[in-house]
Amino acid sequence: MHGPVRALAWVTAPRYKERMLDIVLTGLDWTGTVIFAVTGALTASRKRMDIFGFILLGAVTGIGGGSLRDLLLGATPVFWIREPVYLALCVAAAAATFFLAHIPESRYRVLLWLDAAGLALFCVIGADRALAAGTTGFIAVAMGIATATFGGIIRDLLGGESPLILRKEIYVTAALAGALVFVGAVSLGAPQIPAMLAGFAVCFVVRALALTYGWSLPVYRARPGRTAEEIEKRRG
Amino acid sequence: MHGPVRALAWVTAPRYKERMLDIVLTGLDWTGTVIFAVTGALTASRKRMDIFGFILLGAVTGIGGGSLRDLLLGATPVFWIREPVYLALCVAAAAATFFLAHIPESRYRVLLWLDAAGLALFCVIGADRALAAGTTGFIAVAMGIATATFGGIIRDLLGGESPLILRKEIYVTAALAGALVFVGAVSLGAPQIPAMLAGFAVCFVVRALALTYGWSLPVYRARPGRTAEEIEKRRG
Amino acid sequence: MHGPVRALAWVTAPRYKERMLDIVLTGLDWTGTVIFAVTGALTASRKRMDIFGFILLGAVTGIGGGSLRDLLLGATPVFWIREPVYLALCVAAAAATFFLAHIPESRYRVLLWLDAAGLALFCVIGADRALAAGTTGFIAVAMGIATATFGGIIRDLLGGESPLILRKEIYVTAALAGALVFVGAVSLGAPQIPAMLAGFAVCFVVRALALTYGWSLPVYRARPGRTAEEIEKRRG
Repeated sequence: MHGPVRALAWVTAPRYKERMLDIVLTGLDWTGTVIFAVTGALTASRKRMDIFGFILLGAVTGIGGGSLRDLLLGATPVFWIREPVYLALCVAAAAATFFLAHIPESRYRVLLWLDAAGLALFCVIGADRALAAGTTGFIAVAMGIATATFGGIIRDLLGGESPLILRKEIYVTAALAGALVFVGAVSLGAPQIPAMLAGFAVCFVVRALALTYGWSLPVYRARPGRTAEEIEKRRG
Repeated sequence: MHGPVRALAWVTAPRYKERMLDIVLTGLDWTGTVIFAVTGALTASRKRMDIFGFILLGAVTGIGGGSLRDLLLGATPVFWIREPVYLALCVAAAAATFFLAHIPESRYRVLLWLDAAGLALFCVIGADRALAAGTTGFIAVAMGIATATFGGIIRDLLGGESPLILRKEIYVTAALAGALVFVGAVSLGAPQIPAMLAGFAVCFVVRALALTYGWSLPVYRARPGRTAEEIEKRRG
Repeated sequence: MHGPVRALAWVTAPRYKERMLDIVLTGLDWTGTVIFAVTGALTASRKRMDIFGFILLGAVTGIGGGSLRDLLLGATPVFWIREPVYLALCVAAAAATFFLAHIPESRYRVLLWLDAAGLALFCVIGADRALAAGTTGFIAVAMGIATATFGGIIRDLLGGESPLILRKEIYVTAALAGALVFVGAVSLGAPQIPAMLAGFAVCFVVRALALTYGWSLPVYRARPGRTAEEIEKRRG
């Protein structure tokens, strides 16, 4: 069969819907990977690293969360070894960032917003993969949060920056909200794609409002902790 | 069969002893998990995080050590995916800490003592799980130390605090002593529970003495390291 | 059969060549492990830790990279659980360093050079193991870099030092060059040992030149990043 005929046969095949779903899911996953890879590369730019430093930090951020998810679930070799395209996307995104990072006026601001989009994508994708592996909804929510936050955590640790999870605006809460909405919708019988979009939207809007208005949950009220050195002195 | 009758049948069953052992082991494991989750939440309180920050740091600390152990042994999906109760305990303990952390006068002091108890529980539990997976005694001791210290290490890294393993009082040594006593006792034929209690007691007492009297092993004597910047200057 | 006769039979056996290869590979792997363990112990000496702190940091650095590689590939239990000799080598190397670390005039300089040798060994060994596990060349290069850099990254994180990957001299690039040369040579049909030696030599020479002459790739040109606090102030 030649190209167009074959494509037609493919579209009209009974498993067409399932294939479309796969394509949409893969597209979302690639998008999240590229977005997080760019945030890693932007951290590298803030530290004035060379192009391979950009690629290392971009790759670790782009595939870190999904790697942790696969390791904990026992789905090894991890996804980017089975499908090298994810790693290739990270390399390309980080290299492109090396040449384009001077354009935005505030790279940190861009980083925060891209991180928000990646967080929203990965909290639903992580939860979805966990459900597909047969976990309960509770564990799926936890996996969504882990997948969404871990890449950024290693990015900040390797880049020597204060982790975003320590900042005062709502962060973990947004990932929790998104994963909860997605898992809740699925367990109420909603189809996968609308449930994902709902979870994505909730997480992104919550985080966006937090970034725009500096929103935060009530924090722990009492005094902050003394440092180990201050305690030493008091005892001395 | 109704409740009491069924319970009686259970108690008199031939596998009674094995079941008791399982219950005691599970109880110790839950206790260690809760204790470490509280130390994670206390770190969150020192950094004035919100309640979901408490839960994230509590969960990572409570199940981090066991997750590393399961990953290295290849026992995946890791334990808290198979038995979500561990994660639920972490969530509950961290949430409770959010509302109660203002009570102790010095949270850091409470953190240190709870960390000591968790260290003592997990150094024997980690070694026990490794032996059950068929490792040698040498590897079991290493797994005990890894399980006992890893949760606290990620807690301190994520919380932006100097890791406890870098402080001058005896720390790794206590975990080593506890794991050694447990593995030694088991290999000399001691039953599991007494061996665990002995290992726990040795680790906790060693660490408690170190905390109370500031005990430390002889440290490396010569000068501390220069920073990379000082070295740079000397060369320049 | 007695010793010498048996040895002769062994040498003349048809699988002699394969066995020699195994011995050489194992020897290189042990060497890399010991070298990295010493760098971990030197970091412990710079922080004035006690002997078990040396052993912990030495072991984590010596077996950390290979553990990550095995976890990602799904080759669990990880290598040092299957072959405890690796862990024993780390313990011995770290303990020896505790007593000998005062000898070199600049421990940081020694650390940098040993780290360079370890980097060069592990970038080829990591890539070789990945190829043996059936990955593509692209993934094998990534695994080489991950194996070579990860031990040092945890060493620096646990030791509270600024990661070497953040320093301005060529580092990741050297590991990339070594892994590329090895994988390229193998895919062009070169035998394993010469390909490894070539990869090792390229990585080590590149890193050595960078260390000696302070070589660096062109870094990202624009201004370094503002800290989160500076951004806060600007907005305020």
